[in-house]
Amino acid sequence: MSDFRPDDRLARDSDLLTKIGLCELRLMKDSRWPWLVLVPQRPDVSEIFDLTPLDQTMLTFETTLVAEALKSVTGATKINTGALGNIVRQLHVHVIARSEGDPNWPGPVWGFGTAEPRSAEETKAFSAKLLDAMTP
Amino acid sequence: MSDFRPDDRLARDSDLLTKIGLCELRLMKDSRWPWLVLVPQRPDVSEIFDLTPLDQTMLTFETTLVAEALKSVTGATKINTGALGNIVRQLHVHVIARSEGDPNWPGPVWGFGTAEPRSAEETKAFSAKLLDAMTP
Repeated sequence: MSDFRPDDRLARDSDLLTKIGLCELRLMKDSRWPWLVLVPQRPDVSEIFDLTPLDQTMLTFETTLVAEALKSVTGATKINTGALGNIVRQLHVHVIARSEGDPNWPGPVWGFGTAEPRSAEETKAFSAKLLDAMTP
Repeated sequence: MSDFRPDDRLARDSDLLTKIGLCELRLMKDSRWPWLVLVPQRPDVSEIFDLTPLDQTMLTFETTLVAEALKSVTGATKINTGALGNIVRQLHVHVIARSEGDPNWPGPVWGFGTAEPRSAEETKAFSAKLLDAMTP
């Protein structure tokens, strides 16, 4: 893991909430949706199939853990997950809480409009709720 | 599995290529991108975390298998994977081959423009190449 660093754009556009087994868990600086990003702490990985099978399983486990917690704290209609990477090539998995009537519903969040930052207090409060929901 | 049936809209918008361990592997009727969909053959599942842990691992394995084969037959710049489900609630995982300059690049494919069907011959040829690449 010594060579891992989050991509500059990911680091700029999101706040680090915590590190779990494989991934950094980050919150996008965009209050339009509760939008998390998991970044496996592995260097030079772009596609899910670039990970070892064990890391793939870890990523699935961590994605599920985060998705379930996000659903429970937001009461969202649907969780959207995705690994696109057309712009930022470092592997990262989006986990987004979607609700009927939210911006661009039922379309995707990527590339839609302009981010609306949240305050440091809002970020802190959201993070506390989420991390609490992730703890058994 | 006896109660599983693919959602009507998924069945209408895609062709069944094969069944693998857990999933139906389907090809979207849209020639703008090589666009596959994996549908776990389980009834009443909407979110990845609704699957058992074993099924989650199977889904990851099958997604990786399909993604790697799709990359090798298309030479795509980037594979996009995603489970959205804002419209069709039955759990399904998109696996899409993206290349620089393709429609809506680098934005997402979902909700963009209108599908352009391919011929039965094109579907058959693509399917044969893909399934061959999935076989060790």
